[in-house]
Amino acid sequence: MKLRSATWTDVADCETDLALVPVGSTEQHGPHAPLGTDVITAETIADAATERSDREIVRAPTIPIGVAEEHRQFPGTMWVSAETFRNYVHESIASLASHGLDRVVIVNGHGGNVAALREVGARLTRDGTAYAVPFTWFDAVGDHSSDMGHGGPLETALLAHLEPDLVREDRLEEARAGAADGWGEWVSHANLAYDSAEFTENGVVGDPGEGSADRGAELYDLATDALVRLVDAVAERDVSRPDQRG
Amino acid sequence: MKLRSATWTDVADCETDLALVPVGSTEQHGPHAPLGTDVITAETIADAATERSDREIVRAPTIPIGVAEEHRQFPGTMWVSAETFRNYVHESIASLASHGLDRVVIVNGHGGNVAALREVGARLTRDGTAYAVPFTWFDAVGDHSSDMGHGGPLETALLAHLEPDLVREDRLEEARAGAADGWGEWVSHANLAYDSAEFTENGVVGDPGEGSADRGAELYDLATDALVRLVDAVAERDVSRPDQRG
Amino acid sequence: MKLRSATWTDVADCETDLALVPVGSTEQHGPHAPLGTDVITAETIADAATERSDREIVRAPTIPIGVAEEHRQFPGTMWVSAETFRNYVHESIASLASHGLDRVVIVNGHGGNVAALREVGARLTRDGTAYAVPFTWFDAVGDHSSDMGHGGPLETALLAHLEPDLVREDRLEEARAGAADGWGEWVSHANLAYDSAEFTENGVVGDPGEGSADRGAELYDLATDALVRLVDAVAERDVSRPDQRG
Amino acid sequence: MKLRSATWTDVADCETDLALVPVGSTEQHGPHAPLGTDVITAETIADAATERSDREIVRAPTIPIGVAEEHRQFPGTMWVSAETFRNYVHESIASLASHGLDRVVIVNGHGGNVAALREVGARLTRDGTAYAVPFTWFDAVGDHSSDMGHGGPLETALLAHLEPDLVREDRLEEARAGAADGWGEWVSHANLAYDSAEFTENGVVGDPGEGSADRGAELYDLATDALVRLVDAVAERDVSRPDQRG
Amino acid sequence: MKLRSATWTDVADCETDLALVPVGSTEQHGPHAPLGTDVITAETIADAATERSDREIVRAPTIPIGVAEEHRQFPGTMWVSAETFRNYVHESIASLASHGLDRVVIVNGHGGNVAALREVGARLTRDGTAYAVPFTWFDAVGDHSSDMGHGGPLETALLAHLEPDLVREDRLEEARAGAADGWGEWVSHANLAYDSAEFTENGVVGDPGEGSADRGAELYDLATDALVRLVDAVAERDVSRPDQRG
Amino acid sequence: MKLRSATWTDVADCETDLALVPVGSTEQHGPHAPLGTDVITAETIADAATERSDREIVRAPTIPIGVAEEHRQFPGTMWVSAETFRNYVHESIASLASHGLDRVVIVNGHGGNVAALREVGARLTRDGTAYAVPFTWFDAVGDHSSDMGHGGPLETALLAHLEPDLVREDRLEEARAGAADGWGEWVSHANLAYDSAEFTENGVVGDPGEGSADRGAELYDLATDALVRLVDAVAERDVSRPDQRG
Repeated sequence: MKLRSATWTDVADCETDLALVPVGSTEQHGPHAPLGTDVITAETIADAATERSDREIVRAPTIPIGVAEEHRQFPGTMWVSAETFRNYVHESIASLASHGLDRVVIVNGHGGNVAALREVGARLTRDGTAYAVPFTWFDAVGDHSSDMGHGGPLETALLAHLEPDLVREDRLEEARAGAADGWGEWVSHANLAYDSAEFTENGVVGDPGEGSADRGAELYDLATDALVRLVDAVAERDVSRPDQRG
Repeated sequence: MKLRSATWTDVADCETDLALVPVGSTEQHGPHAPLGTDVITAETIADAATERSDREIVRAPTIPIGVAEEHRQFPGTMWVSAETFRNYVHESIASLASHGLDRVVIVNGHGGNVAALREVGARLTRDGTAYAVPFTWFDAVGDHSSDMGHGGPLETALLAHLEPDLVREDRLEEARAGAADGWGEWVSHANLAYDSAEFTENGVVGDPGEGSADRGAELYDLATDALVRLVDAVAERDVSRPDQRG
Repeated sequence: MKLRSATWTDVADCETDLALVPVGSTEQHGPHAPLGTDVITAETIADAATERSDREIVRAPTIPIGVAEEHRQFPGTMWVSAETFRNYVHESIASLASHGLDRVVIVNGHGGNVAALREVGARLTRDGTAYAVPFTWFDAVGDHSSDMGHGGPLETALLAHLEPDLVREDRLEEARAGAADGWGEWVSHANLAYDSAEFTENGVVGDPGEGSADRGAELYDLATDALVRLVDAVAERDVSRPDQRG
Repeated sequence: MKLRSATWTDVADCETDLALVPVGSTEQHGPHAPLGTDVITAETIADAATERSDREIVRAPTIPIGVAEEHRQFPGTMWVSAETFRNYVHESIASLASHGLDRVVIVNGHGGNVAALREVGARLTRDGTAYAVPFTWFDAVGDHSSDMGHGGPLETALLAHLEPDLVREDRLEEARAGAADGWGEWVSHANLAYDSAEFTENGVVGDPGEGSADRGAELYDLATDALVRLVDAVAERDVSRPDQRG
Repeated sequence: MKLRSATWTDVADCETDLALVPVGSTEQHGPHAPLGTDVITAETIADAATERSDREIVRAPTIPIGVAEEHRQFPGTMWVSAETFRNYVHESIASLASHGLDRVVIVNGHGGNVAALREVGARLTRDGTAYAVPFTWFDAVGDHSSDMGHGGPLETALLAHLEPDLVREDRLEEARAGAADGWGEWVSHANLAYDSAEFTENGVVGDPGEGSADRGAELYDLATDALVRLVDAVAERDVSRPDQRG
Repeated sequence: MKLRSATWTDVADCETDLALVPVGSTEQHGPHAPLGTDVITAETIADAATERSDREIVRAPTIPIGVAEEHRQFPGTMWVSAETFRNYVHESIASLASHGLDRVVIVNGHGGNVAALREVGARLTRDGTAYAVPFTWFDAVGDHSSDMGHGGPLETALLAHLEPDLVREDRLEEARAGAADGWGEWVSHANLAYDSAEFTENGVVGDPGEGSADRGAELYDLATDALVRLVDAVAERDVSRPDQRG
């Protein structure tokens, strides 16, 4: 059930404590992929899992602006501070929990949100407000995960499957040409870079030419199934906190 | 241009300083209208004005959760604190301004956001970060504005025009029966109520039966034209701050 | 009972849960009216209602500095941020509530404080800390209310009644000459101005020449009676929060 | 010049950078002295120095609620957190400084405010916003200072001089009987008590019977003269910050 | 027991509610004494009392950076804002209290921390989180206390006793030559200075030549004994909060 | 140069912009390893690199309490919130930068600090306050890194090399018996656990029996060399921020 189209009486009639909260980012994804990539992917995977699961799940609206200051040199990129993002997600989930929707998976489409979401989930869970666990779709697509870049093969593929018009085929060559091979600049396992513009000319990391619609269909299935499994685990977990030791 | 589907290179190529930031709320709108009403209306009016205007305008994604604690007793209603909402909107707009998109109209669909958005606009403007002005569509529909309730004639009408499937025709009678005549409980021009559940049984204020699709089409035109005029004024305004007096 | 002159034992002996907290602003009111206008008016109306009411009421000291950044271009204007103002008022009222004075009317003399006070009242009330309702005197003077400007007919009149020496009669002509007709600059029901210096040369809005002492006496009576009625309503209201719906 | 009664044009015409900001507290002062004691004393001393000084000085309104949680067990005591108090004082002074009133003495009547005011003064001064120094009247009355208690000889005396009606002569005996000899409960120069109710039965520290009006007159003169001297020093001080060493 | 070297099982086996939390500062102490002076002295006194006391005491790690902005002009001086310092100390103690270590003495080596620590102790105690009392060693060394400066006789003496290598004997003459006689610049009992560089050329206050190792040994004993007595008092105190009066 | 023992004049004489800030945590490390493990390891590696490097480096004091709420069920574990930790580290580094020590490596010993330190480093760097990069020693020990647990082989080994008395050999068997194999409880690449007590009985993850002193010596060398290389890279990096794209 999507909150966008449901009425409050629909929610009242629905017997579940499960909710999905999609979280994206509006940020550069190279010259070939849209600023809304992380919004589209997170929302779509959340919807797919809501349908594919046997459980009743409430799907919240997608939070569209995240922790993306690392792309600030690229026009159109939007962001909020990590602190504001944490508060916004935290309080949004707490409002769901006030209605008994207190087992929540945060469905995330952006790497820059990961640490913040983990902090939010911990706070909500430890305080007993809600049990909330973040899920980042591209971490859960099997061996493909190691190909994750930025505007690279995985995101391009999933977009090509979901909304092919949004991938500018005519700019793929340019996208590949200006792309970085990997994320960051590393010495002694420390990343010396804070802004993506320090290491990628056009904002791309990885080869978007490896992002076919067929591959996207496979990613879609893998991520959706993984999310369905996670929802099952969240639904059944004992979320009481451990006793003090000693 | 919608940021959702544009690339950063598209934004870089676009010569404008104008942006629209739609802001809604995910909250109860009675038994007949969806929780996403304020998101849908704000976003649609913003899109209509973007198209109808002669100017180049960047349309940001819609911020979907606002200051709606006053509806917290109704299942599915989401909200954040006014402080967090202000920060989220403020920083989102500041990120646009960093790219030169520093004349912004915040297109608002929810009465509970109004005071917070005015505070945000003042802060951004006085600090010279961006010139940002909030616009609330139902304040700008001529004589219709006096009929504004909650899930009442205006919102029902606009939804009936935009997404008729989302209006539950079969619950309109029930919606009308449990509705309040007006917003709040007033003594000496002070509102004694803080939660809508103090004065409306089912969350509705006003008669949704007065919300035909035809009326919705008229509201759509009125609000869109008003927003286009406002964008013109924002584009041309001298936004320098006044000198100290004396 | 005024806290300024009462001892703690007096308060302990007093059986009431009612308090008035006057809130003003120290800000320009044109060349003819003092910076303390909003302090004087709020405090006086609060005192008048304390006397005129049949109920025992505790009157707190007047908070003299409010949300007045919109007048910052005029020398002598003081202000704090809306956030700090909210916290200051909130915690002041919470301290009263700790002594059982937990039905509070905030008696306000400044338009710029209105939104912030509503937010404070909501927070205190929803959290169960105190039931607190703001009252702004110039909203509650019948048909006169539509004449409200800034340093205009209503404030000048009330001052002329309360402290005639503080109205500079010899500057009234100058005050009228540099005044604006209305507050703000409006397009499509959005106010394009954030600072009063954008639309008024000398800080005045409305015609202070329409502010006779006789009119002030009438305003005094109307506002006082309205406040007495509001105190009655606050005293008798069921302030328990509504049940969750559905 | 008192901001309460001055107009903005008066302030504009006044050539000074000097301001006094009185800060009090609304808190218990025993069964014989009013809750407003610290407001009255701070404000009066500030006014006296404004008159006695040869310099032009702007006197701001008195901030009436301070850091007084240590008296919270006594009815009628009001307080805000130290953080909110700091912000309120800080921003109030910053607003004065925006008009060139950037040499400020904070005239304080309450011991509980001292540490907070020092922190505020440091912040304003180091940031170059204003040069602000707190002055606490009872620290600057010569040998009398060692008699300072709470609602004790000094405050009772000054009140007896300033507003004799506010001292309840008929409760002086009771006040003395329930008073503590000294402030706090000390072991190894650490105060074990945080609330005054831990060591004083009726809120009094020291013997209010030693607080005659004659003594009050002397305190008034001593404190006023000390404040005039401080204003001179503040007016003439080089407030530029020292260079980095080394 | 020092937490640095104890295991969690050691703490679990230990039956005490007493903890010491040393707090220092890393800041200039003249040309002859190390930046770590306040860390070394606080930690050593805490350790000495832990040993000398008959009670079981848990000794937390030393918090090494405090409220020292007043020394910012001297290279190597570190500091955090008072607000951050308060939060860091507050939360550190709250974490101890979660394990039942809820009677805490904060052993302080830096004058600039005093006000902040008092605020922290009050908050923890009033909220019932922990009973926490700050102890500043140089306030508790009998008549010596009146000789306290900065990098002066007392600190130099204690260092000469504890870690003689850290006192640069060859710079003592220089240290004395550039020292101030007293802390601050005072008019009417108000300190006009906010930075130590306003009144001391080389950061020293007082004569470090009066800081022999023998004197340091005496200070060490005096401070340790005073702290042991304070721990006894803290262990045995009734920490329940007083009842409301009246 | 260690700030603990250096004077401000030593720092003034030292020509470098390089600083190391060790950051640990005081938290459970099983029944066999001390609560101070992360403090000891971070500090020691920082000292070793300071010595081994050809460059002049200032070593700040070790921040001893970090983001360790995940171990809160184990006695003696201390922590602060991530927000307070970020502020404390941020401001500490900013104070160093005010003296020209504005190329900083944060030498970290605790996994729970990693995300917070990255956020701090980004903020400092993007604001131009300092260029600060976190380094976590156990990420930079070659193939050993994959053996990282908690109180497991790597930490036990390094302690056995550095301070053998702190490893309780007689509890190693018990430590192994109650240990978890891996950190967390994972479904679909999401960690369902927030507290370590959810998945480890005695707080240990990994086999501490694999933590010999010889292995510790190797880890010490690997980590030190890695840190020296990182310091070189930090010293020589162009830290100007990239230009806006497009």
